[in-house]
Amino acid sequence: MLFKKIESEGLAHFSYIIGDQTEAAVIDPRRDIDVYLEEAKKEGMKIKYIFETHRNEDYIIGSKALAAVSGAEIFHADGELNYQYGEAVEVDREYKLGRLKIKALHTPGHTKGSHSYLLKDYDGSPWMLFSGDILFAGDVGRIDFYGEEKLPEIAGLLYDSLYNKILPLGEEVVLCPAHGAGSVCGSQIAEREVTTIGIEKRSNPYLQYQNKEEFVAEVGEMEAKPKYFRIMERSNLNPSAKKSTPFIPALNPDEFENLMQKENTAVIDIRSDSDYAASHIPGSIFLWEDILASFVGWFFDNNQQILLINDGKYPEKAAKSLFRMGYENLSGYLARGMLSWHMAAKHTESTNIIKVNQLCDLLDVNSDSEYQLLDIRQEEEKEEEGYITGSLEIPLTELQANLENYLEQIESGNNVYVFCGSGMRSMTAASLLENKVESEVCVVLGGLNAWSSTSCPIKI
Amino acid sequence: MLFKKIESEGLAHFSYIIGDQTEAAVIDPRRDIDVYLEEAKKEGMKIKYIFETHRNEDYIIGSKALAAVSGAEIFHADGELNYQYGEAVEVDREYKLGRLKIKALHTPGHTKGSHSYLLKDYDGSPWMLFSGDILFAGDVGRIDFYGEEKLPEIAGLLYDSLYNKILPLGEEVVLCPAHGAGSVCGSQIAEREVTTIGIEKRSNPYLQYQNKEEFVAEVGEMEAKPKYFRIMERSNLNPSAKKSTPFIPALNPDEFENLMQKENTAVIDIRSDSDYAASHIPGSIFLWEDILASFVGWFFDNNQQILLINDGKYPEKAAKSLFRMGYENLSGYLARGMLSWHMAAKHTESTNIIKVNQLCDLLDVNSDSEYQLLDIRQEEEKEEEGYITGSLEIPLTELQANLENYLEQIESGNNVYVFCGSGMRSMTAASLLENKVESEVCVVLGGLNAWSSTSCPIKI
Amino acid sequence: MLFKKIESEGLAHFSYIIGDQTEAAVIDPRRDIDVYLEEAKKEGMKIKYIFETHRNEDYIIGSKALAAVSGAEIFHADGELNYQYGEAVEVDREYKLGRLKIKALHTPGHTKGSHSYLLKDYDGSPWMLFSGDILFAGDVGRIDFYGEEKLPEIAGLLYDSLYNKILPLGEEVVLCPAHGAGSVCGSQIAEREVTTIGIEKRSNPYLQYQNKEEFVAEVGEMEAKPKYFRIMERSNLNPSAKKSTPFIPALNPDEFENLMQKENTAVIDIRSDSDYAASHIPGSIFLWEDILASFVGWFFDNNQQILLINDGKYPEKAAKSLFRMGYENLSGYLARGMLSWHMAAKHTESTNIIKVNQLCDLLDVNSDSEYQLLDIRQEEEKEEEGYITGSLEIPLTELQANLENYLEQIESGNNVYVFCGSGMRSMTAASLLENKVESEVCVVLGGLNAWSSTSCPIKI
Amino acid sequence: MLFKKIESEGLAHFSYIIGDQTEAAVIDPRRDIDVYLEEAKKEGMKIKYIFETHRNEDYIIGSKALAAVSGAEIFHADGELNYQYGEAVEVDREYKLGRLKIKALHTPGHTKGSHSYLLKDYDGSPWMLFSGDILFAGDVGRIDFYGEEKLPEIAGLLYDSLYNKILPLGEEVVLCPAHGAGSVCGSQIAEREVTTIGIEKRSNPYLQYQNKEEFVAEVGEMEAKPKYFRIMERSNLNPSAKKSTPFIPALNPDEFENLMQKENTAVIDIRSDSDYAASHIPGSIFLWEDILASFVGWFFDNNQQILLINDGKYPEKAAKSLFRMGYENLSGYLARGMLSWHMAAKHTESTNIIKVNQLCDLLDVNSDSEYQLLDIRQEEEKEEEGYITGSLEIPLTELQANLENYLEQIESGNNVYVFCGSGMRSMTAASLLENKVESEVCVVLGGLNAWSSTSCPIKI
Repeated sequence: MLFKKIESEGLAHFSYIIGDQTEAAVIDPRRDIDVYLEEAKKEGMKIKYIFETHRNEDYIIGSKALAAVSGAEIFHADGELNYQYGEAVEVDREYKLGRLKIKALHTPGHTKGSHSYLLKDYDGSPWMLFSGDILFAGDVGRIDFYGEEKLPEIAGLLYDSLYNKILPLGEEVVLCPAHGAGSVCGSQIAEREVTTIGIEKRSNPYLQYQNKEEFVAEVGEMEAKPKYFRIMERSNLNPSAKKSTPFIPALNPDEFENLMQKENTAVIDIRSDSDYAASHIPGSIFLWEDILASFVGWFFDNNQQILLINDGKYPEKAAKSLFRMGYENLSGYLARGMLSWHMAAKHTESTNIIKVNQLCDLLDVNSDSEYQLLDIRQEEEKEEEGYITGSLEIPLTELQANLENYLEQIESGNNVYVFCGSGMRSMTAASLLENKVESEVCVVLGGLNAWSSTSCPIKI
Repeated sequence: MLFKKIESEGLAHFSYIIGDQTEAAVIDPRRDIDVYLEEAKKEGMKIKYIFETHRNEDYIIGSKALAAVSGAEIFHADGELNYQYGEAVEVDREYKLGRLKIKALHTPGHTKGSHSYLLKDYDGSPWMLFSGDILFAGDVGRIDFYGEEKLPEIAGLLYDSLYNKILPLGEEVVLCPAHGAGSVCGSQIAEREVTTIGIEKRSNPYLQYQNKEEFVAEVGEMEAKPKYFRIMERSNLNPSAKKSTPFIPALNPDEFENLMQKENTAVIDIRSDSDYAASHIPGSIFLWEDILASFVGWFFDNNQQILLINDGKYPEKAAKSLFRMGYENLSGYLARGMLSWHMAAKHTESTNIIKVNQLCDLLDVNSDSEYQLLDIRQEEEKEEEGYITGSLEIPLTELQANLENYLEQIESGNNVYVFCGSGMRSMTAASLLENKVESEVCVVLGGLNAWSSTSCPIKI
Repeated sequence: MLFKKIESEGLAHFSYIIGDQTEAAVIDPRRDIDVYLEEAKKEGMKIKYIFETHRNEDYIIGSKALAAVSGAEIFHADGELNYQYGEAVEVDREYKLGRLKIKALHTPGHTKGSHSYLLKDYDGSPWMLFSGDILFAGDVGRIDFYGEEKLPEIAGLLYDSLYNKILPLGEEVVLCPAHGAGSVCGSQIAEREVTTIGIEKRSNPYLQYQNKEEFVAEVGEMEAKPKYFRIMERSNLNPSAKKSTPFIPALNPDEFENLMQKENTAVIDIRSDSDYAASHIPGSIFLWEDILASFVGWFFDNNQQILLINDGKYPEKAAKSLFRMGYENLSGYLARGMLSWHMAAKHTESTNIIKVNQLCDLLDVNSDSEYQLLDIRQEEEKEEEGYITGSLEIPLTELQANLENYLEQIESGNNVYVFCGSGMRSMTAASLLENKVESEVCVVLGGLNAWSSTSCPIKI
Repeated sequence: MLFKKIESEGLAHFSYIIGDQTEAAVIDPRRDIDVYLEEAKKEGMKIKYIFETHRNEDYIIGSKALAAVSGAEIFHADGELNYQYGEAVEVDREYKLGRLKIKALHTPGHTKGSHSYLLKDYDGSPWMLFSGDILFAGDVGRIDFYGEEKLPEIAGLLYDSLYNKILPLGEEVVLCPAHGAGSVCGSQIAEREVTTIGIEKRSNPYLQYQNKEEFVAEVGEMEAKPKYFRIMERSNLNPSAKKSTPFIPALNPDEFENLMQKENTAVIDIRSDSDYAASHIPGSIFLWEDILASFVGWFFDNNQQILLINDGKYPEKAAKSLFRMGYENLSGYLARGMLSWHMAAKHTESTNIIKVNQLCDLLDVNSDSEYQLLDIRQEEEKEEEGYITGSLEIPLTELQANLENYLEQIESGNNVYVFCGSGMRSMTAASLLENKVESEVCVVLGGLNAWSSTSCPIKI
C-alpha cells in the first residue's frame, strides 16, 4: 500500500499519492509532476485517478500535465466552473483503487464546490480524509472569496462541513490537509506534520464552537486578495500541460545588463538580506529564495521576463518555485553571481542596515520626530506578536499596489527604520522603495524577533 | 517539524526520525544509518537522542553506529540486560526535543522491558506513540520468548500495556509501530501504512477482548525461534559500529569457481525462481532477493563466506539486506551473472518446474501412491489459506535444521511436487534438497495462489 | 572548461558537450536530453550551439528537443537534405564558444555531407576532432548508403577526408567519434575509451593504406540496411521535440492479457535467456534488455503498441532505449513480472536449452542427418570467430524479414540447435520460430564462446 | 573498458580509475573514496590496484581507506620513505589489468621517487600516461622540496624525465596529470581538460628548451611552503583509513556562541564576500567556500575545533573540502545561518567595502600619504597581471604567519584599501586584520579585475 505526502516547499502545499496493488491516485497535484511519476514507478503502479479538492487560486494545478503523461482520469471539484479538462467528481461516489475505495464528500466552505476525499480501510471503515482547504491542522481555509455580504452564508456551509460531515467520521481518522504551516492559505496553521480528526477536535480553535450561530457570528473576515489569485483561478480552468521547469541560461555581466534594459523585465535578487544590503544591482528587487513562491505573485506579472541574481549556481529551486506559480519567462541568471558583476566593475548600490542595539541606542537620544518606524507585517502577525507603538503600518503585500499613496506618508525626510519579523521582508520593502523616497531607508536586521529579545524604548 | 518513517524493505521494519527546531531523535535505527543522517542534514538538525523500544532479535540495531557518527545519546529499553553501550531509559521521564517532549512509557509484553515512546504535541497532549513490537497495525508482538510456562504471565503484562496504558492515550493518537506487513515479527500485520490508536481499537483483533482473563486464555503460543535470533540478541548488546555495507568484488567465472571451493562458503542465488530452474550453479542455494533479509538467518551462519549470483549487476540491495542481518563476509558476485558462466561452458544444473494446469492433468490420471505433495508453508499461512489434503508438511524454515529426518519422509522414490504461496520458497526448498533425494523434486510455479484459481482434485 | 562524453548505452553512441566560460555546444545530441541540460546547469553555462555531424540513421536525434528547451542554434550537416529545422553548417566557418573556437570541416564519406568539428585550443591550435561516423577507434563508418555502384566514389571521398583532412591535423589531436565498441555503425570499433589521431594512425587498419587506389579497391562493401534506418532518416529531417520518455503503466495479469489481444501489439520479454526459457508468455518475443536498442528496429514497427515483460520493476532502462529509437507507444509492463503471471495460473510456454557439453555428447552418437545447427550470427562475426561446419546460416537480423523462406530450410523435422555468440540472440531466434516449425528448437547456452572452450566434433 | 577522471574541486586534483573486464585500478585516490567504489560497482569490477605517483603533500591520500574497503593492493612511489602501509612500486614492472597492462616508470623531478604510470593499449603500444605532479597541461610540478642548493640537481632529473622518458612515448599518447588549472601545485596549469604528449610538446613552455643546460639554468625557484605541507607529508606515510566525512551538527545561536568560547576553536565564515562585509560574527575568519580547500591549510591547524557559518543549509561541500585536507573536528554550523543570529539579536560586525569607481574618485582628490594600498596577491599573479604602483605587498598566505611584522607596516593610521584578483581573498585578509589595526581596512570589490576595466590613477 502506498501513501505519501508531497510537500511543495515555499508554498507549504501538500499533495498526496495513495495506491494499492497496481493502482494509484493523486490528490491536488502540483505542476512539476515528476515526483508522482517516480513514486508510481517505485511502487509498480499506474496512476488511475487525479482528484482535485477545489479550484486552486494559489498555485498552478498539475492535473492536466499529469494526466497527459500518465493517462489518469481527472475529477475536479467546484464542478459548476467552466473547466476545459477532466470531469466533475460525483458526490458520494466511491472510486476503486486496488482493494481500497475513495469516497468523494461534498464539503463546501472554502469554495462552494469544495470536496474532501475519504479513503476507506480494507474493511470499509473511514481511514484518511483528504480535506483540501477546508480543514487544516489548527486552522480552516479562508471563506471570503464570495464577498463580505456572503460571509455568514459561507461560514454556515463551512460549519456544516466541519461539524456534520467531517467530525462524525471519527476521531481515529487520519487528516490530510492541502496546506501546512507557512502557507498563505491559512495563517494559523499548526506545525503538526501528522494529525487526526481527533487531534483537531481537541486543539483546533475552529472546532471548539458550541453551535452554528456562534460559529457564523465569529468566523470569517475579508482578507487581501492578491491579483495573482485571479490569474491562478483563470489558469486553473485550463492549465498548461507543460511539465518541465524551463531551462535558465547562464549570463555574463554584459549579457545580463543588456537583457535588463529590455521592456517588461524584472530583476529579482534571491540572495540573503545582508548580501543584498552590501551590494546589489540597481533596480533589482529583493525577494529571498525561501519565500519566493509565496510572495512573487504580489509583485510580478506572469508575462514579465525575469532575470535572477543568486549565488551564481544554477537556480534550480527558484526555477521550481516560479514554475509552480506560473512564471515561465526566465531570461537568465547571472553566472558566478555578484562576484562576476564586481569583477566587471559594473554599477552597484547598497542598502542601509541597522542592528537592534544600534537602533536602540539611537532612539534613546532622538526625539520622536526625527525618525520613522515602518512596520510592514501582516495584520495577523501584529495581532499575535504585538504592535509597534508609533509605527507607520503598511503591509508589504500592499506596498507596491499603492506605492504613490504610501510614498507620501513615508516622505518625511527622516530616517525610516523598516521592521518585519526577521528582516527579510523589510529588505524587500527597502528594495521597492529604493530611489523613490528622499528619506534614508534602513532595514532592521533580525526584525521583531531581535527586538523582542532586547529592552528598548519602542513598545511592542 | 520533522517526522519520517523509514522502511527497511525485506524486513518490513519501521524506524523513525522525529525532530523540532535543531534537535532530532531516532527510534530503533537500522544498521545502515545514512538515511537518518541525510534527513537531519536536510532539516538542519543534530541528532540528540536514539531511543530503542526493546532489545531487537530480528536485525542488527544501528544505535551504536549512529551515535558514533552523530554524538547522540542512546537510551535502551530492557535495561536489565547487560548492554555494552548507551544507558537505560528512565520510565516516565520526558526528554526535550526542541519545543516538543518525548515520554518513555514502560509497556512490557513482547519483552519484559519493552518501552513505547509518546511524542507530545506543542500543547503537551499525546500526539504519536512509537510502540515498538508491542502493538502493530492489526497485530501484536509475539510473547513466547520466556518459554511456554510463562505465556500467561507475559500475556497478562501485554494486556495491561495495551488496555491500561496505550488505549487510554486516546483514539486520536497516531500509532507508529516497529513493523509492517510482511515482517517475521507479526504474521498478521495489516497493510495499513498509517494508523491510529482509534483505528486499532476498532479493527485490531487483539484489542477486542472483554477482560484480561479472556485475553490471557486465548492470546499467545509458542512459535519457531530461529537460531539467528539468539545471535542477533547477543550482537545487539554490543553491536558493531561499522556503518557502511561492505564492497562486494565482481568475479569472473574462474575466480568464482575457485572461491566456491573454499571451506565455510555459501553460494546464494538471488535471481527469480524460473531463472534458477533453467540453469544454476550446482551447490548454490536459491533465495529470492526480495525475501533475502527475512530468510537468510534460517539457512546461513554469520561467519560464512557468501558468494552471490544475480543478474550480474552490482548486488546493492542484497548487500544491504545481508548487512542488516549481520552478514559481512561477502566474497564476491558473478560479474555479468550466469551469462558469463554459460559462455565459460562451466557446469550447471536445472530444476524441474511444473505449472498448475500440467500438474492438474497429471494428477487426474495418477493414483495417489505415485506422487507426493510437499507443502512448505508456515502454520499460520495454512490456517489462513487452507491445508492441502494429503500433503507432507515441512515448513521451509525447519527443513534444513532437520534435513536428515525429513529426507526419510520424502524418500519415496515418487515425484515430489513442492508448494508454497507463489513458488519462490518452493524453489528454495528444491535447492536445499538438490542431489539429496532420489525422487524428482518439482516446483509448482505460482504455488497455492495459482492453484486456487483452477479447479483440481487437490483439496485445499 | 567543460568537456564531457555522453555514452548512450545499448547504442554505443557518443555525444559530447563542450564549453568555455558561459557558453556550451553539444555535438549530436540524443533524444533524452536531460543529461546536456544537467551538465550546462552544473557548469553555469547556456547551450549556444548544437552541431550535427550527419543526418543520423540509427537513432532519433535530439537537436530539436534540445533547442526547444535551451534556445540553442542548430547546425546540421548533409545540408542538401530537406530539413524542417535548424540551418546548414557553413564549411570552414569558426564558431565562437567562450574563448574557444570550433571549426566545421567538410569530411564526406559516411554520407556525402558529413562534417567533422575541430575544437581549437586557447592558442588556436587543433585540440579535439569530433569526427562523427567518419573515423572511429579502429574503424571507419560504412559507405554503402548510395548503392553498390557508388562504392568506389564514396570510398574515394572517405580516403580524402581521412588522409588529406584529418591526418594532417596532427597526431596529438584528441579524436572524439560518434560511436564506440558495440555499435551497429561499425562492427570493428575498438574498445578504446579515449583515442587520438596519432593512435589511430598507428593502429586503425583503415589508416594503413599506401594510396587512394589501394584504399578504394579494398574498402567498402554492401551491408544489410534494416528498414528502420529509412524511418530514422525520415524522422531526423524533422524529429519530435518531445523530450521525456513516456510513463509506462504497471499492469496486473488480467490487464496485460487484455492488452495483448489488441491489434498491432507486440510483447517483448527483456529478461535473461534462461528466465525466458523456463517460462514465458506465449507470443512474446525475447529481446534481452542490454541489446534492446540495437535490435528492436529489426523486428518491431514504431507504430506498434509495445508491452514489456521484465523482472517486474519499472523498466526505466528499456523505456529509454525504446524512446531513443522512436518507440513511444508503450502500453504497459507486467507488474511483479512473471511471478504475478504464475500466481494467476495463466498459460506459459518454455523453450528448450542445452549446454555445450550435453550437445557435444549428443552429437557424438548421432549421425549428421538427425539434427541441424542454425548459426544466426552476422557475417563479420563469422569472419572473426570462425564458421560452424555444416550449419544453416541465417543472420538473426534477416530471420523475420524472410521468415517463410527460412522456415522451409529449417523444416526438416530434426532437432535444431541454435548458435550465436552467447546464447542471447539465439533465444530471440527461438522466440521468433516458436510454434512456427515442427522441429524442436533448442538454444545452445553460452553459444560459440562456450563451444570454443570445449573439444567437440563441430568444427569452428 | 573503464576510464574516468575524478576531479576534486577546490583542490583541482585529478585522480583516475581505469579498468578492463572485472579489474580496475585507481591512481592517487582522494580521501573520500565513495566515487571509486561507485564506478567499480557500475562497471562490475573489483579494485585490484591502487597506484600513487608520489607522496602527496597537498591533501590526504585515500589509498589506505580504499584498500581497507576494497581489498586492493597499494603501490606507492617515493619508496625510500617510511610508509606504514602498502608496498613500493617496482620500476618498469608491468601490472596486469584485465587484458591491459600498466607499466611503472620512474620519473623523478617533483620528488626524487616520483613515478608515472603508462597504460598500454590492447596491442601493447603506449596509450595513456598518468604523470602525477611531473607534467601538467602547460606546466610542470615544483622542484624546490629539497632546498635551494639542490634546485639544479632536481631540475636535471626533471629534464631527463620529461625529455628522455615522457616525450619519447609518442605525441599521440594521452596525458593524465594529477592537477588541473587552479591547483596550488602548479600556478600556470592550463585549462585543458584533455591533453596529449603532443599537445604539451607543442604548447607547454617547459618542453620548449633546447638542451638540459638551458633547462637547468632557467627552471626552478624556491616557493613558499606552508606548514600544512609538512603535516600532509607526515600523514600520508600512514593516513587514516576513515572513509566518511564527519557529520556536522546544526547549532542554534546560543549553542554556537557557547562553542565559540571554547579554547582552540576557529570560526570560519564561508559565505560570499559581500555577505560577510554586511554582517558577520566577531572573531570569524572569512574563507570563501570555493577556495576553502586551497587556503584552509595556511590559516588553521588540523587539531582545531572548527565552527562554520554559511547560508544555514548543511555544509556538505565544505565538509568534504575540510575532510580532504585532514580537518575532522567540525563542531557545528549555525542552523539557518546569520538569519538566526540576527533574530537572536546577537552581536555582529561589518567590514568596509568600496567599489573601484568610488576608490578611483577618492584617490583623485587625495594625496598619496593619506591612504595605503595593500596588495595580497601571490608573486606569480603579479608577474602575470601587473604590479600596483605604490602598494604594500603582503601575500595573503604569509599574512598570518608574520602578522606582528606586517601590522607594523600597515599601522599608518590611514585607510587601507585591500586588493586581490576579485575581492574574495582581500576579505580574508580584512577578516584576519579585524580589530588588529587602527586603520580603517577596506576591501576593494572586484579587485584587480574590476580595476583593470576602468581608467584610474593607480598604475598596474
